Amino acid sequence: MADKKKRKRSKDDEAEELPFKSILESDEAILELFKSYVSSSIKAAAGAGGASSSSSKPLTLADLSLSSSCREVADLSLSSVQTEIETVIVQIARSILAGDGFSFNVPSRAASNQLYVPELDRIVLKDKSTLRPFASVSSVRKTTITTRILALIHQLCLRNIHVTKRDLFYTDVKLFQDQTQSDAVLDDVSCMLGCTRSSLNVIAAEKGVVVGRLIFSDNGDMIDCTKMGMGGKAIPPNIDRVGDMQSDAMFILLVEKDAAYMRLAEDRFYNRFPCIIVTAKGQPDVATRLFLRKMKMELKLPVLALVDSDPYGLKILSVYGCGSKNMSYDSANLTTPDIKWLGIRPSDLDKYKIPEQCRLPMTEQDIKTGKDMLEEDFVKKNPGWVEELNLMVKTKQKAEIQALSSFGFQYLSEVYLPLKLQQQDWL
Amino acid sequence: MADKKKRKRSKDDEAEELPFKSILESDEAILELFKSYVSSSIKAAAGAGGASSSSSKPLTLADLSLSSSCREVADLSLSSVQTEIETVIVQIARSILAGDGFSFNVPSRAASNQLYVPELDRIVLKDKSTLRPFASVSSVRKTTITTRILALIHQLCLRNIHVTKRDLFYTDVKLFQDQTQSDAVLDDVSCMLGCTRSSLNVIAAEKGVVVGRLIFSDNGDMIDCTKMGMGGKAIPPNIDRVGDMQSDAMFILLVEKDAAYMRLAEDRFYNRFPCIIVTAKGQPDVATRLFLRKMKMELKLPVLALVDSDPYGLKILSVYGCGSKNMSYDSANLTTPDIKWLGIRPSDLDKYKIPEQCRLPMTEQDIKTGKDMLEEDFVKKNPGWVEELNLMVKTKQKAEIQALSSFGFQYLSEVYLPLKLQQQDWL
Repeated sequence: MADKKKRKRSKDDEAEELPFKSILESDEAILELFKSYVSSSIKAAAGAGGASSSSSKPLTLADLSLSSSCREVADLSLSSVQTEIETVIVQIARSILAGDGFSFNVPSRAASNQLYVPELDRIVLKDKSTLRPFASVSSVRKTTITTRILALIHQLCLRNIHVTKRDLFYTDVKLFQDQTQSDAVLDDVSCMLGCTRSSLNVIAAEKGVVVGRLIFSDNGDMIDCTKMGMGGKAIPPNIDRVGDMQSDAMFILLVEKDAAYMRLAEDRFYNRFPCIIVTAKGQPDVATRLFLRKMKMELKLPVLALVDSDPYGLKILSVYGCGSKNMSYDSANLTTPDIKWLGIRPSDLDKYKIPEQCRLPMTEQDIKTGKDMLEEDFVKKNPGWVEELNLMVKTKQKAEIQALSSFGFQYLSEVYLPLKLQQQDWL
Repeated sequence: MADKKKRKRSKDDEAEELPFKSILESDEAILELFKSYVSSSIKAAAGAGGASSSSSKPLTLADLSLSSSCREVADLSLSSVQTEIETVIVQIARSILAGDGFSFNVPSRAASNQLYVPELDRIVLKDKSTLRPFASVSSVRKTTITTRILALIHQLCLRNIHVTKRDLFYTDVKLFQDQTQSDAVLDDVSCMLGCTRSSLNVIAAEKGVVVGRLIFSDNGDMIDCTKMGMGGKAIPPNIDRVGDMQSDAMFILLVEKDAAYMRLAEDRFYNRFPCIIVTAKGQPDVATRLFLRKMKMELKLPVLALVDSDPYGLKILSVYGCGSKNMSYDSANLTTPDIKWLGIRPSDLDKYKIPEQCRLPMTEQDIKTGKDMLEEDFVKKNPGWVEELNLMVKTKQKAEIQALSSFGFQYLSEVYLPLKLQQQDWL
């Protein structure tokens, strides 16, 4: 019986024998190390004359003399959107009266009109645009849809309410026929008016959650994210009603998936190492991307990303960092500069001795995606990322964040992340 | 110009001319009507001698003398789960020492072992079980997996932490091979130990959100859901850390989808008609089902469901109400009795004059699903539901909640729902 008890205790204490646990320093020491990292990276950014993307004043298209050849949208107030719409309509009325007919001048959102700008580290839209005349069989439908969407957005401005893309579609099913048509024209209208989609008061479903050392206001209510239990606070779909961000966090931890988020929220990791934990539960949605950017810009905290060690993990990181091709016209507002790839990185698999059975073989498609990503500019500009991605493609192995559970359910929060912070091990 | 202004104003005021808006009474009058509905339905329940499912003491299997022929699980404390596991293992040790070998007695979760009990209005599991011997080629793997899962759950009990199914799978990929195997055995273990899956501290990803007149504690933090902005509060994945529910709401509004939820949250519908608004954003997940049930049981409020007018809307309602076949062993804890079908009902399409172009034709599959549902016991016992479903299958038309947007984006919150409350129009 005594023997049985002893064995049971040693099971409880298995955390003590976890790989690398022994080299962990005290939490205070790790936090001191992190503080010196932050101050040295601020100095480095200042030394580089504000050229680093982590500096407080990021580069703009104008700084690069690109503002005439590239197009960007801005957050506009509701009344400005209303004025823009009225200006467009008045122009068209004048054109009709002058005998020049009825047509919209719509920026092209095609791939050929997109450009990756290394200095900005994001994808932007070039300045090509096409005419959408009403008096043409091929474009009469699209012109009508564009007019209808403009009218609907104008209504939203007057009422100051938010709607979803689905709501918009249902206001005139007969005209729009299917939602992809109204959705596409909505993006056209954003570009035309030069404003972000959220300025149009059209929102997507919310998916993300946030927990940790952050206080902010959501539609007038003050939210304290240390007091959100394990569930966390759902990230609001309408960023324009989010404000007053305050935080004593030292960094933002961007987590790809739900399961890792829940582990960290339950263990209240943010109380041990002051941080804000955020996840979009998979593919980044617009609301979470806007929220992350707002945190980064207002709180000026480093962002560390915890994603799966597979090409999609890096892809997700790149969408947060450099934007998606589909919404390149709004990359300035949707992207968060200078996200660090903390893990799980391909080199971590051997470093942390992830057991063979917890690694998965990459499929042909995975390998192709990995190789394609090696050609992407935003990967190429970071030699560390190239090296890691090369290793992944060479070993043909991938692993999820959850693979760390093979050392015990709390290995992520008790050893892996503290050690990453201690060794400042991110790229 | 004056004329233009006038036309513009009439556009703003179009809400005044909305169908049925004119017959709406004042909010106070509607609330009075609702109060009398609640008190009369409480009286009716009391008059029926507690037999109605809305009474405070719901029927149990024991009341129906079914407890010996049916199997149900209960919420157990962590220490009870630990004791149950130890009891199972001691029994097996005794059996081995007695020369009877090593085997688990596992309740069958097959469809043939399930039963819909009309008096309870939910699906339950019958008492058949099968032997899972270690010394058999066909079951040796499953027996090993069962033993390993028991050991892992025992660990969770000792540490008092929650993990996801994915975490559990990753602790021994070599043995489990793929996650469906560890997931299935996890349900077996729930049945064997006679406890709910949440008692095992294994949780699913959170999906649902709640907003409105509810205060509750999540992992020790008090959450006021009137102060959660538009985003709302993410429903915690671990129901055992939820408690202290308080509310001055008059009803719970269960919403199928995100878009309708956001409309109601932004309009703060819960301030006009005191209520709690909850959604799982589509298919009901375990966390939202547990949360809804807990609200219903603790706050004793009527639950009104707002779902799409298609067979899947009714199916979703039935999962909240009567349970899913897959987890019938836990139907007592997962189901919320007496949910009312508020809308969008097939008869609403004509009643509210939903334009033809906002109705969608049902596919062959939709019609088949609708006809199958007409055969389900939980539909049959509600003649109103049968009538509506018959109408749907006959007209072959379906419609989403969003179809109401064709009358204006706020028609749902400004006319449809208030009128439903005024006319007490639910089934």
